[in-house]
Amino acid sequence: MSGIVVQNIERADPEVIAVLERCGVSTVHEAQGRTGLLASHMRPIYAGARIAGSAITISAPPGDNWMVHVAIEQLRPGDILVIAPTSPCEDGYFGDLLATSAQARGCKGLIINAGIRDVRDLTEMKFPVWAKAVFAQGTIKASLGSVNVPVVCAGAPINAGDVIVADDDGVVVVPREKAADVARAAEAREANEADKRARLARGELGLDMYNMRGKLAEMGLKYV
Amino acid sequence: MSGIVVQNIERADPEVIAVLERCGVSTVHEAQGRTGLLASHMRPIYAGARIAGSAITISAPPGDNWMVHVAIEQLRPGDILVIAPTSPCEDGYFGDLLATSAQARGCKGLIINAGIRDVRDLTEMKFPVWAKAVFAQGTIKASLGSVNVPVVCAGAPINAGDVIVADDDGVVVVPREKAADVARAAEAREANEADKRARLARGELGLDMYNMRGKLAEMGLKYV
Amino acid sequence: MSGIVVQNIERADPEVIAVLERCGVSTVHEAQGRTGLLASHMRPIYAGARIAGSAITISAPPGDNWMVHVAIEQLRPGDILVIAPTSPCEDGYFGDLLATSAQARGCKGLIINAGIRDVRDLTEMKFPVWAKAVFAQGTIKASLGSVNVPVVCAGAPINAGDVIVADDDGVVVVPREKAADVARAAEAREANEADKRARLARGELGLDMYNMRGKLAEMGLKYV
Amino acid sequence: MSGIVVQNIERADPEVIAVLERCGVSTVHEAQGRTGLLASHMRPIYAGARIAGSAITISAPPGDNWMVHVAIEQLRPGDILVIAPTSPCEDGYFGDLLATSAQARGCKGLIINAGIRDVRDLTEMKFPVWAKAVFAQGTIKASLGSVNVPVVCAGAPINAGDVIVADDDGVVVVPREKAADVARAAEAREANEADKRARLARGELGLDMYNMRGKLAEMGLKYV
Amino acid sequence: MSGIVVQNIERADPEVIAVLERCGVSTVHEAQGRTGLLASHMRPIYAGARIAGSAITISAPPGDNWMVHVAIEQLRPGDILVIAPTSPCEDGYFGDLLATSAQARGCKGLIINAGIRDVRDLTEMKFPVWAKAVFAQGTIKASLGSVNVPVVCAGAPINAGDVIVADDDGVVVVPREKAADVARAAEAREANEADKRARLARGELGLDMYNMRGKLAEMGLKYV
Amino acid sequence: MSGIVVQNIERADPEVIAVLERCGVSTVHEAQGRTGLLASHMRPIYAGARIAGSAITISAPPGDNWMVHVAIEQLRPGDILVIAPTSPCEDGYFGDLLATSAQARGCKGLIINAGIRDVRDLTEMKFPVWAKAVFAQGTIKASLGSVNVPVVCAGAPINAGDVIVADDDGVVVVPREKAADVARAAEAREANEADKRARLARGELGLDMYNMRGKLAEMGLKYV
Repeated sequence: MSGIVVQNIERADPEVIAVLERCGVSTVHEAQGRTGLLASHMRPIYAGARIAGSAITISAPPGDNWMVHVAIEQLRPGDILVIAPTSPCEDGYFGDLLATSAQARGCKGLIINAGIRDVRDLTEMKFPVWAKAVFAQGTIKASLGSVNVPVVCAGAPINAGDVIVADDDGVVVVPREKAADVARAAEAREANEADKRARLARGELGLDMYNMRGKLAEMGLKYV
Repeated sequence: MSGIVVQNIERADPEVIAVLERCGVSTVHEAQGRTGLLASHMRPIYAGARIAGSAITISAPPGDNWMVHVAIEQLRPGDILVIAPTSPCEDGYFGDLLATSAQARGCKGLIINAGIRDVRDLTEMKFPVWAKAVFAQGTIKASLGSVNVPVVCAGAPINAGDVIVADDDGVVVVPREKAADVARAAEAREANEADKRARLARGELGLDMYNMRGKLAEMGLKYV
Repeated sequence: MSGIVVQNIERADPEVIAVLERCGVSTVHEAQGRTGLLASHMRPIYAGARIAGSAITISAPPGDNWMVHVAIEQLRPGDILVIAPTSPCEDGYFGDLLATSAQARGCKGLIINAGIRDVRDLTEMKFPVWAKAVFAQGTIKASLGSVNVPVVCAGAPINAGDVIVADDDGVVVVPREKAADVARAAEAREANEADKRARLARGELGLDMYNMRGKLAEMGLKYV
Repeated sequence: MSGIVVQNIERADPEVIAVLERCGVSTVHEAQGRTGLLASHMRPIYAGARIAGSAITISAPPGDNWMVHVAIEQLRPGDILVIAPTSPCEDGYFGDLLATSAQARGCKGLIINAGIRDVRDLTEMKFPVWAKAVFAQGTIKASLGSVNVPVVCAGAPINAGDVIVADDDGVVVVPREKAADVARAAEAREANEADKRARLARGELGLDMYNMRGKLAEMGLKYV
Repeated sequence: MSGIVVQNIERADPEVIAVLERCGVSTVHEAQGRTGLLASHMRPIYAGARIAGSAITISAPPGDNWMVHVAIEQLRPGDILVIAPTSPCEDGYFGDLLATSAQARGCKGLIINAGIRDVRDLTEMKFPVWAKAVFAQGTIKASLGSVNVPVVCAGAPINAGDVIVADDDGVVVVPREKAADVARAAEAREANEADKRARLARGELGLDMYNMRGKLAEMGLKYV
Repeated sequence: MSGIVVQNIERADPEVIAVLERCGVSTVHEAQGRTGLLASHMRPIYAGARIAGSAITISAPPGDNWMVHVAIEQLRPGDILVIAPTSPCEDGYFGDLLATSAQARGCKGLIINAGIRDVRDLTEMKFPVWAKAVFAQGTIKASLGSVNVPVVCAGAPINAGDVIVADDDGVVVVPREKAADVARAAEAREANEADKRARLARGELGLDMYNMRGKLAEMGLKYV
C-alpha cells in the first residue's frame, strides 16, 4: 500500500488559487458548503500568514520523515506540503533544513498533522506552518511511506493537487475539480459581505437586515 | 426553557467596572476570594487586550448562532457578549460581520466557550475575543436559545449584568452585587503589592518579607 | 520524603551553558541522542525567548506555591526555576511578584508543569516562562515540598544543577555531567548544518545530498 | 466565601425521587427540556447502577478532602454526595473508608468531578461513584471548603437538595422545585415511548411513524 | 452537498464478511497493510462484541439525528450504521428507540464518532455500539445530511458498502473491492499465527523463532 | 544512549512483593509517602486484576516493538513488563502472541504507556495490562531501544527491578531498595484501617474519630 510516489500530478489553475488565497479560509469554507475544514488543532506557528497552493501529499509512518525528502523533489513553485502520519504522532518531522530545501523549490508552506521544530528559524524565513504541535522530538528514516496518494489529514480527505488554503483561521481543502466553482462562489460571497458590513457598521441590526424578527416570533421567542 | 430574551438588565456602576478593568484578571480573582475564574482553555485571540464590562449572556444551541443576532440588539456601550453553548461545541459562531455589528453598538469584546473565526479581521478591528478554539466551521440559524438568562460558561456561573474582566491571564466574572466591594478589595490589593514589589526588586526575600522561616522550620523543613 | 532543601548544588560550567543556549532546544536534543525533551504542552508565554541555565528544582504539592519562596533563596545568577507539582495541576503558582523576586536574584526564567499568571507583566519584564497553562487560579501556602531534589517535569527526569535549555521549540534538559560533551556535539552539529543549509538553499535535493536514492529503491519505492 | 456548612436543607419528595430514579438519566434529561446534564467525562466506576437522591454538595479545595468528613454528618438516608473541586483536579478524594462512613449514614452514592480510589472495594460494597478519573493520589486536610452551598460540578449548576439522577448514561441534576413536574413529564414520556418501541420493533419506520417524509422532501432531500 | 440518499448500494459477499468478522479487528488491520483503523477513542459500550457488516454511512450535522431515521430505511440484514458528524460533537444521537428500529431491520450495530445513550438498554438488547462518548444530550431534527455518501469517521475514510469490523480492539474499515483479498490474507495470517502461538507457549523465544539475534547484534545491541 | 540490554538485574524479595500485592495500589501509594503513582490514563484492560512484581523496563522507539522480544528473554517468573515509548505514542505494541510468550516465561502482566491490542484474548488468558489506549495499530521492528535501563513511564521514574503494583486503582512503583520498608508501612496501615472501618460502619463519624471538630472550628468553619 505504501512505497509509491505519484509524479506529475494535476494542479488547479493558478488564477483560481490566487482567488482562493485572497478570500481566505472562512470564506472558502462557506463557499463550498461548509466542508473541507481540517480539525481546530491545526494552528499556525506565527500569526498573519495566508497562503493557498496545490497539495503535495505525504503519507508518512509515525516518527519517520524520510518521505519528506522524496516529496520535496515533487514540489513545483506555489505548492504546499501536506504531511499525514499513519498513526497519531506529534514528533517533529520538519525543521529549518527541510524548510530551506522546500522553499528553494518554491514551496509556500507546510500543513502537518504532527509536530514541527525550529519555529524561530521558520518564522524568520517566512515559511508558514500549520501543525498539531511544536515539538523538537527527532524522527528517523527507516520506513517507506507514499507521496501524492490520497490521505486523511486532521479529519479531512485530501488528494494530491487539491487546493489548500490556510490562514489564521486554520486550514481548508478544496477538491481540484471544484476549485474554480468554489473560487467564484467565494468571490460572490465577499462582494455580498462588503455591503452587509457597511450596513452593520452604521448600526443596522442583523435582526432587521436579515428579516429575522418574524421567524423568531413565529418560533416563540419571548421578550420579557 | 429556552426562547427567552430578558431586556433592560441591571448593570454595575461604570466607575466600578473601570477599576476592575484596570486591576485585571489575577488581582480581581484574588480580591473576590479566588472565585469566578473561567477554565484555562479560554484564551485570547491576540495578546495585550484587557477589558471589563457587563455581561450580555447567550445560551445557544450547539452550532447555532441565531441568538447572537438577538443579543446584539440588547447591547449597550461597554457591554461584553458571553456565549455558552448548551453542549460542548467548537464551531465558529462569530466572525467579522457579527463583530462589526457588535462593535457598532459599543460592545467591548466577546467571551465564547466555543469557536471563533476571522481572527485576522477581529485583530485588526481591535475586537478582542476569548475562546475555546479558533475554528472556521459555519453554524446554522434553526433553533431558539435565550438571551440574558443565567448560564454556566467554561465552568463559571454567569448572570446577565455580572462584570466580566478579561486579559492575557484569562477571564473572571464578578457578580454584579459584589462588584463594588470586589473593586475596593482589588485596589487595596494593588496598593499593597506595589510596596512588596519594590522590596522584592531590591532583593529582599519573600521568606523574610512574609516571615515564613519560623513556620517552615516548625513544619519540619530541613536544609541539607 | 518531602520537606528537604538541598543547598549548594553543583552547576555546569557557564561557558558550556552559553554554548547550549546559543545552539537551542532542537539542536541540543539531537546532540544528546534525542533525549531529555519535555512534553509538547510546555509552551512559552511569549515568542522569541531563548535561555539556558542550571535547574533549581521544586517538587511542589498541587496548588501550593510555598516552596517557590524557599527556592528563590537558593537561586544564583543564571539559574532557572523548575516547578514540578506532585499531581496534575494547572493552578497559577507564579506571577509578577515572584518573578520580580526571582529576577532580582538573577534568575533567567521559569519552567513549570502547571499554570502561570500575570503574563503581561512577565512579558514586559522579559521574564520568560514555559508552562502547561495560563491560569490565574490562586494557590495556598500550607504544605511542604522540597527544593533541589530529583523531579520528573512534563515527562523528563531533572536533577538540580542539570542544564535547562528553552526556546520557541520547547524545553530540553541536559544532565550536568554530560553538559560539556553535549555542548561539543551541538556545536559540531551546527557547523555541519551550515554547509547543508547552503547547499539546500541553492536547490540541491536532500535525496542527493544524503545519497538516499539507492536505499529507497532497494526498499522498493516506486515512482509512477 | 468558603468555610460554611448549611444544615437542614430542603429535599424533594421521596416519591418524586423514586420516579426520577426509575426513569433514568436520558429520559429525565429530555423531560426537563434537555438541561442539567453533567459533562460526559463523568463515568461510573462499574456498570449497571442507577440511583437518584438529594444532593449534599461539597465545594472543596483541589487535593483537599477535609470537607467530605464534614459533609458526611449532613447526610440523611437516600442522599447523594456531590464533590466539586474549586480548580481542576483528579486527585483521589474518596476511598473505601469514606464510602463505609457515607454508606452507614444511608448515602446512595457519590458524584465527583475529580478522582476516586479503592474502586474494587467500592464495587464490592455496591457504593456507586461517577467520577472524572480513577486515581489513587492522596489528598490532604489543610483548608476549609463549604458544604451545601451552590456549586458548578462538571459544567452543571447544583444546589443542595436538588435531585441527582445517575446511571450508565451519566449524571443529570433536577432543581428541587421542578422535581415533581419533571417526574410527571418523565413518566409521560416513558408511557409514550413504550408504544413507539413496540411499533418500531415490528418494523415500522420512524420516517412513517413520525410523518417525516413530507417535511424531508420539502427541505430538498433527494433519493438517488 | 448534503441532502442526498444513495439507495441500493453494493455490498461485499456475506461469506467474505463472515471471514472478516471471525478474524477480528487486529488481524484484519494487519492483513490489509495496517490501514483502515478508526481512532482509539472509538470504544465499545460493552465488552465482548465482535461484528462485521456493510456500512450504511450517515453524514450528519452536529447535534442533529434526523438522517438516522432516513438511514434506517436503507438498512438490510447484516448492515452496520456509521454516523460521522460534520463537526466535532459528542451529543447523544442514538438510543434505545433507534436501536429497536435498526435491530428490527437486521442492523448488527452502530459506529458513531459522537455520543450514545441508553447504554443499559442497548447492552440488554445486545446491540453493540462503538462511540466517542456516552452522553445523554438530546439532539434535534432540523437540518439535512446525507446517507450513503463517502464520509471520514474518526479519521478513516469510509464508503457505503465498505466492510466494517468492530470488536474490543476498536473498529477497522475494509474497502468493499478489497474485502475478498483482505479476508484471504487475514485467514492466512491466522493460520500462520496458530503455529507461532503454540511454539511461544512452549517457551520458545521470538528472538529465536524470528531469527532476530543476528540482525540485532549487527545493529549494535549490547548485552551488559 | 539506546541499544543496551542490562542482564541479571536485582529484584526485591518475593515475600515483600507478595505483601505489596496484597495491599494494593492505594495503600502502597500512601505507605510510601504518596509517591510513585503513574498517571491516571493508565487503565486496566479488564476489571479485577491485582498484581505485583519486579519491573523489566523497556525504552522503546515510538511505534517499534522490537525490544519487547529482547526483553522477554530477560523475564523471570513473577516479573512485570514495563514499556515506555521515547515519544508520545498509542500504537499497539503488544498483543496475544507476545502475551503468550511472556506468560510462558512467568510474566504476570504488562504496564505500557502506549497502545495494546487483542484485549479479548488477553482477557481470556488472564494476562492483565494497564495501558494508555486500546489501539490495534501495528508496529515495526526497525530501531533499537534498551532493556532494563531507567525509564519514565506515565510520569513516574522506574528502574529495572523496582516493584510494580497494579490493580483497578492504577499503577504504582516502589523503588527496590525501599520495598521492604514500604511493605511494612503498608501492612501497618492496613491493620490500622480495619479498626477504623469497623467504627465507621457502625456510624461513628470521621469528625469524631479523628477529632476534627476543634481544628475546624478554630479555622473558622461556620454551621448555618
